[in-house]
Amino acid sequence: MTTDLPDYDDLPPAAEGGRSAWGLFGADDNLGLVNLLTPERVVAAARLIRKGTVFPLDAPVDAFSPPIAVTRGVPRHHLLHVPGTFAFDDVYDNFFPQGSSQWDSLAHVGYAPDAFYNGATEEDVIAGRRLTMEHWARHGIAGRAVVLDMVATLREAGRPYDPGSRTEFSVEDLELARRRAGVDFHPGDVVIIHTGFARWFLEQSVSARLAVQRSMTTPGIAQSEDMCRYLWNTHITAVASDTIAVEAFPADRTRAMGFLHRILIGQFGMALGELWWTDNLAADCASDGIYEAFFASAPLNAPGAVGSPANAVAIK
Amino acid sequence: MTTDLPDYDDLPPAAEGGRSAWGLFGADDNLGLVNLLTPERVVAAARLIRKGTVFPLDAPVDAFSPPIAVTRGVPRHHLLHVPGTFAFDDVYDNFFPQGSSQWDSLAHVGYAPDAFYNGATEEDVIAGRRLTMEHWARHGIAGRAVVLDMVATLREAGRPYDPGSRTEFSVEDLELARRRAGVDFHPGDVVIIHTGFARWFLEQSVSARLAVQRSMTTPGIAQSEDMCRYLWNTHITAVASDTIAVEAFPADRTRAMGFLHRILIGQFGMALGELWWTDNLAADCASDGIYEAFFASAPLNAPGAVGSPANAVAIK
Amino acid sequence: MTTDLPDYDDLPPAAEGGRSAWGLFGADDNLGLVNLLTPERVVAAARLIRKGTVFPLDAPVDAFSPPIAVTRGVPRHHLLHVPGTFAFDDVYDNFFPQGSSQWDSLAHVGYAPDAFYNGATEEDVIAGRRLTMEHWARHGIAGRAVVLDMVATLREAGRPYDPGSRTEFSVEDLELARRRAGVDFHPGDVVIIHTGFARWFLEQSVSARLAVQRSMTTPGIAQSEDMCRYLWNTHITAVASDTIAVEAFPADRTRAMGFLHRILIGQFGMALGELWWTDNLAADCASDGIYEAFFASAPLNAPGAVGSPANAVAIK
Amino acid sequence: MTTDLPDYDDLPPAAEGGRSAWGLFGADDNLGLVNLLTPERVVAAARLIRKGTVFPLDAPVDAFSPPIAVTRGVPRHHLLHVPGTFAFDDVYDNFFPQGSSQWDSLAHVGYAPDAFYNGATEEDVIAGRRLTMEHWARHGIAGRAVVLDMVATLREAGRPYDPGSRTEFSVEDLELARRRAGVDFHPGDVVIIHTGFARWFLEQSVSARLAVQRSMTTPGIAQSEDMCRYLWNTHITAVASDTIAVEAFPADRTRAMGFLHRILIGQFGMALGELWWTDNLAADCASDGIYEAFFASAPLNAPGAVGSPANAVAIK
Repeated sequence: MTTDLPDYDDLPPAAEGGRSAWGLFGADDNLGLVNLLTPERVVAAARLIRKGTVFPLDAPVDAFSPPIAVTRGVPRHHLLHVPGTFAFDDVYDNFFPQGSSQWDSLAHVGYAPDAFYNGATEEDVIAGRRLTMEHWARHGIAGRAVVLDMVATLREAGRPYDPGSRTEFSVEDLELARRRAGVDFHPGDVVIIHTGFARWFLEQSVSARLAVQRSMTTPGIAQSEDMCRYLWNTHITAVASDTIAVEAFPADRTRAMGFLHRILIGQFGMALGELWWTDNLAADCASDGIYEAFFASAPLNAPGAVGSPANAVAIK
Repeated sequence: MTTDLPDYDDLPPAAEGGRSAWGLFGADDNLGLVNLLTPERVVAAARLIRKGTVFPLDAPVDAFSPPIAVTRGVPRHHLLHVPGTFAFDDVYDNFFPQGSSQWDSLAHVGYAPDAFYNGATEEDVIAGRRLTMEHWARHGIAGRAVVLDMVATLREAGRPYDPGSRTEFSVEDLELARRRAGVDFHPGDVVIIHTGFARWFLEQSVSARLAVQRSMTTPGIAQSEDMCRYLWNTHITAVASDTIAVEAFPADRTRAMGFLHRILIGQFGMALGELWWTDNLAADCASDGIYEAFFASAPLNAPGAVGSPANAVAIK
Repeated sequence: MTTDLPDYDDLPPAAEGGRSAWGLFGADDNLGLVNLLTPERVVAAARLIRKGTVFPLDAPVDAFSPPIAVTRGVPRHHLLHVPGTFAFDDVYDNFFPQGSSQWDSLAHVGYAPDAFYNGATEEDVIAGRRLTMEHWARHGIAGRAVVLDMVATLREAGRPYDPGSRTEFSVEDLELARRRAGVDFHPGDVVIIHTGFARWFLEQSVSARLAVQRSMTTPGIAQSEDMCRYLWNTHITAVASDTIAVEAFPADRTRAMGFLHRILIGQFGMALGELWWTDNLAADCASDGIYEAFFASAPLNAPGAVGSPANAVAIK
Repeated sequence: MTTDLPDYDDLPPAAEGGRSAWGLFGADDNLGLVNLLTPERVVAAARLIRKGTVFPLDAPVDAFSPPIAVTRGVPRHHLLHVPGTFAFDDVYDNFFPQGSSQWDSLAHVGYAPDAFYNGATEEDVIAGRRLTMEHWARHGIAGRAVVLDMVATLREAGRPYDPGSRTEFSVEDLELARRRAGVDFHPGDVVIIHTGFARWFLEQSVSARLAVQRSMTTPGIAQSEDMCRYLWNTHITAVASDTIAVEAFPADRTRAMGFLHRILIGQFGMALGELWWTDNLAADCASDGIYEAFFASAPLNAPGAVGSPANAVAIK
């Protein structure tokens, strides 16, 4: 079923703008484009493990403090002596799976009120009946990663760029980065967009971080139908970044495609990765000129969960 | 440095029994035998990805309820509406990183009071200065997995076996399972011991589970110096199981080697994985006769943490 | 309505044993016998404030550790610096309102499955529609307290008594203590039964406390229909103690009245106070011979809550 | 010791402005002006219980949502089935003792960095050695309450007033309210200032509440040395209000007395009550013309805690 996905313009229109991929993997599907991660693609991706270098892609769980989204929080960690031993246990409270490097499950954002990916309802999500994190966890996410280094791309293009600004990356910008990287996209790819935002944020003072919390200003992909068409037609599984929302934020909700999550998650069933730690991987790509890698992630096997730490490694 | 680890009997004796590997990777080492996961070994292990099947090794985070260790708990999950949107977030409280499928960090159990792996003190652990989970998280854990199916081994040997009993697996038992699997151990291996305990537990009634909580009875490897010698001399990195403690429990603390965690973690710096979901992987090994796999885990990047979900996949 | 409550034997029989007070305060009542705390009784009780001594009745919130009920826990406390100031805030996780000195709301225990006080259903409790703590919180609990010192009573009667044992106090024992105290019961009274258990528990070693956790052994009132008749016919509002359950525990569920909570809470709508710190108050009563006091409590205004800290003072 | 407190102008000057009451109750004192609640004053206050009406002063623990202080949160409540019974327990996470109607302990705000009331250090607070909530909890807070209704006072004075504004109440305004109420202040009084803010906030939309969260705008007492002198010279124990900070907020830190908490808590050892639910009490005072009441509070017996729910009742 996965070999011949239709083109974007052949998808049926969605009721409130954009195109709909609902039903492509069956009415009961809870995986979305993770379905594209077929055994053949896993085997092919394994050949990218050439030098044996492992790049963990998760920032510390408590790195983003104060939290960028005010409705999330920083985990509270307790160390516990195991009674009667010389051993320790520990426990977390206030652990927001989306508080640091993370996956959005397909239950995170709907296309419209009460209309989540593949026709799931709010009640389906609340009851943990559809789309929540355990579906990806039971499948695993393994395949090929491709790195688009927007910092290097814009620098080489002579364009000024501030990773703390609301810079929009257009389809042309992504294509520029892809050609620079010397890679094609393959179906099932995990596309990793390095913007420099996460490192920039971690270097700011507390008051500067609070200003980011207030404004939510971050760079990211442009909100346009061109972008939707482009991302769909590549037939990738996931797009991840070192920003809070992959798309430029705050979303400009006055535009038809003003909040891409609605389409990417709610219609396409695409996996979005956010606040990933991409610096080490991007630096290695710059160093050896190879912008593809094997990718493996074990999302938290958390029934009913909306988000998960990324739990991801790229291996070159 | 990792190519010529001494034999067990060439290690210096430890003060309170067993042998000591402190200092082998330097006085400041916080990784222990994870150091054995060299790039060469990662590349070699990648060749084990032959059919592209991914086996997530994490049970659901809330599966073990009531908790087997009474001092741990079941996570509390809250779904949160994102104000003014049709989106959800979520948050966990009472999230015990060791409550389900998990890694013990080297900070979990010491060799003796105030004497943790490589000479770290209790204060080092409490302050998060040594041994805690972020060290493995920044390194990543990738390499070769080998599966020892004790259920099938004992069955084929005609020995009665109850996965809810305190059955000890001797060195000879493990060797029987290894030979049956047709594999050798390689330095850096993650040895996965399938006992059937986790599945058995999940099939019990609440009152039967509470009886397990009270007695902590579980099968596992035998507590003996032979076992220490065997596990060290294989030069493996990790041993994981679908039980609460890898070793048979409750520990018989009257024996010299009565609580193996002290030696394996506190002296060897070996990674222990517990309560892993090994059923699907073991079934596949039984089906295709191949008991080795590529292995990747991204432990939670949790500074100062004692434990982490396993976040692990095996790929064949 | 509150002046002429029927006698126990004039109440209609309840379906599964005992008598039923459902409907006495109206079909929608959520207060139970707290209705008896009329303004006249508050004014009368205020006259008991004679020397101005205040007796807080709450033990520390973290005193009972390990928790006596294994399904409850000890609160986790976090001190937080208020950013940019020389001020502190704090926050609790794992805060069990019934973990230390506490009130059982009428939502805590039903008379039978799905049959809570006054006909409320499980769904009413889960939805916070009936019986939960905010009802008492909005009313306040103020009136007269009477102290029954069982330790002194049994000692003076020459009866051996171990506050760590499952000693049952019969109606005759309570009457002995009442006469010794020189008090009558008045409608609306809060009867405080001092058994010495809480102090005893706090003086035990950790392993002795764990033995209590396992067996739940505590002294308390006897489980009998005589006891139900006696407590109802006094027309008191509340009975509180320095034990985990007011009644002797573990409950002997083989008896018809084997678990008094079912009748006292589920049928009578009586307020039960548990694990109160009664030592200072009992010592003062022994010293001045006055076993009555003004009583005031502000249960936590916690919508939908099952329990609350006692938040109580007696004033003599 | 409590009968002859010096006048404000006879107190020694404090190093960074204002006057210091450190040492008045001894070098080890942890109670501050709660010391003024002597038995005689409790007995005298009990005579104010004339009609037996009880006014709980705590708003619901989850009422202020989103939280007015962004660094606090709304409690998360979990209902738990008690296994094998028809009973419920419950547990809170993210329980901020200062999230709703509350007391500031003397550990909440210092006079200067590392200089808390009576010379306590930050380390004293962090270690729970000084000033934290258990001291007041073990003493209890009972005495006389006096109500100042600023809403009615300003209305009768013909002054426009918006409870959502940063209105400052001057000494003259408080005096006007006091004379209007026909009361004198007595040593040890709990002065309750009704501003209408809490009710106003609870009637706002979510977006209007978020605007309050952003600006922290609330009415309250004026930040001036006159106010300090006035409040000290009354020799009251506590001042409470239905606002977030008693004083007008945000504090104007450019003034010498720009943040009154520093003086009132950090120098005077005065008890501050915030976000109390004063509407019912104020309405009753308006109705019967009596602006004094008996007051009782049992602060949470929370060792090391900075704040507590108010747990307070006024009784007339």
